[in-house]
Amino acid sequence: MLAVDKNITTTRDHFLSYITELQETICKTLEDVDGKGVFRQDSWERTEGGGGISRIMENGRVFEKGGVNISAVHGELPIPLQDTIGVNESRFFACGLSLVIHPLNPYIPTVHANWRYFELYDNQENRKDCWFGGGSDLTPYYIFPEDATHFHLTLKEAIEPFGNGLYLKYKRQCDEYFVNLHREKEARGIGGVFYDYLRPVDENDEQKLLSFQQSIGNAFLPAYLPIVRKRMEHPFGENELIWQEIRRGRYVEFNLIHDRGTLFGLKTNGRTESILMSLPPRVRWRYDYHPAPGSPEAALLEYLKPRDWVNVR
Amino acid sequence: MLAVDKNITTTRDHFLSYITELQETICKTLEDVDGKGVFRQDSWERTEGGGGISRIMENGRVFEKGGVNISAVHGELPIPLQDTIGVNESRFFACGLSLVIHPLNPYIPTVHANWRYFELYDNQENRKDCWFGGGSDLTPYYIFPEDATHFHLTLKEAIEPFGNGLYLKYKRQCDEYFVNLHREKEARGIGGVFYDYLRPVDENDEQKLLSFQQSIGNAFLPAYLPIVRKRMEHPFGENELIWQEIRRGRYVEFNLIHDRGTLFGLKTNGRTESILMSLPPRVRWRYDYHPAPGSPEAALLEYLKPRDWVNVR
Repeated sequence: MLAVDKNITTTRDHFLSYITELQETICKTLEDVDGKGVFRQDSWERTEGGGGISRIMENGRVFEKGGVNISAVHGELPIPLQDTIGVNESRFFACGLSLVIHPLNPYIPTVHANWRYFELYDNQENRKDCWFGGGSDLTPYYIFPEDATHFHLTLKEAIEPFGNGLYLKYKRQCDEYFVNLHREKEARGIGGVFYDYLRPVDENDEQKLLSFQQSIGNAFLPAYLPIVRKRMEHPFGENELIWQEIRRGRYVEFNLIHDRGTLFGLKTNGRTESILMSLPPRVRWRYDYHPAPGSPEAALLEYLKPRDWVNVR
Repeated sequence: MLAVDKNITTTRDHFLSYITELQETICKTLEDVDGKGVFRQDSWERTEGGGGISRIMENGRVFEKGGVNISAVHGELPIPLQDTIGVNESRFFACGLSLVIHPLNPYIPTVHANWRYFELYDNQENRKDCWFGGGSDLTPYYIFPEDATHFHLTLKEAIEPFGNGLYLKYKRQCDEYFVNLHREKEARGIGGVFYDYLRPVDENDEQKLLSFQQSIGNAFLPAYLPIVRKRMEHPFGENELIWQEIRRGRYVEFNLIHDRGTLFGLKTNGRTESILMSLPPRVRWRYDYHPAPGSPEAALLEYLKPRDWVNVR
């Protein structure tokens, strides 16, 4: 599925080549940090066109479960999806990298990121439309404000060169998106950035958007890894694991009830195991559970609403 | 919310009185079997009209988590829901009992049941429409065909007096409904019965439908309890618990992705904790997990497709 044209000329080939390398870099780096877990690889084909490579780690020393998946699919765009996107072209190409990492230590946050590129064609296979989308966001179980600030600041620095105010715009879109509406609008975590339908206005702009996307992709490891290293030896016990499992329940609720990417994938015959790699390894649901007032667990809840983590402009 | 008119004359009052008693009977009986766990009670009010009584057991000896909830709500029917149901009356009343029981021992199946009644009114508060709906279904982790047959046979015997072929019809509707479409159409369990929009044609028929509904409600304990008693002392270890947790993941997936009742409740500002009492206490997701061929775990999967459990006609 992922054979890139040797003479890379198009944005499509450039981006596909980029995410293929990024998948390798991220997996290699996470394996180094973990020291025990390795990513197994599953390649899959899509009957209707294209396929993907899923790389999954389970039972690492640091990372209890994680998936770093790339896919590149093409074919006919189902009519309901044409309506959703608001286009009437029927041939499409889509590729991207999606990752979710669930560390074992409850003091290390879960992280999610996705970077994607989409093209639409007319019946003569001429490209009629294209756009980038993506984002990264962090879901802590215990709050360290300096970690949240580091994550946001790293993303901000990767975005700022591409336009004033862009970080703030995409940060707010992230705050709006990752919300459990059925849980009194509780945020899934402390946010990050989220953007979609970034369409180039001309060739120069297309090159700039590709660079923007690569800049955010390259910021993933610098945004997340220092937090992992800082918290990975933090002692924890049974109580912290239980709290982590309860909070992971909220992660499941968001992904299965609200997440458009997950539901779209499941309802369009995507590869279920690759889509649901995002679900945590251990989860717990208790009826109407509330942490003790004043506890570190209760403190987290105060942070699960939009707030500024860096000086914004 | 649940003050029943002392002069019970309407179907609405009859049914509300019935489910109120049934909740008490079921909770009392399950507590007796458990010997340790007790149901705590939470009453709640709905801003827009009505409310409910949730009864929840956690960490029993036999029942790890269970909810037996009743509710009676009324008010304005949101327009999207009018469209879904296919009616254009705007005032409604709905009441019902919903239960989900997750036993600790993996050799005892999880069970779900729901019995509900719905009314619609015109602007002068005249009843314009009404119907019954409901069902019961069983979700085993290990298959004992005789348990599945007992469950189905008990339901069949409760239904048969109300019409030839009814059991088969409602059993097939159940098979069609409780399916994880995104898991290659794997059934949630071994089924049971499922029915909806049972509208009386006249007063006599209304009485008959009420009796039908009570007959199925009364069949719940005789259908489920003998299975609990038969399997509750079956020895189990860590491996059986892990398999139970993995299968419970499928239960979560069905309830959050596909179940109309759950999604309707969550999206119409229902009481989240009462709705999500259905989620299991411990859950596990492993990437692309398959039990060893020939194992008792693999044997279950052969049964997760529609099959006849009793002689049907």
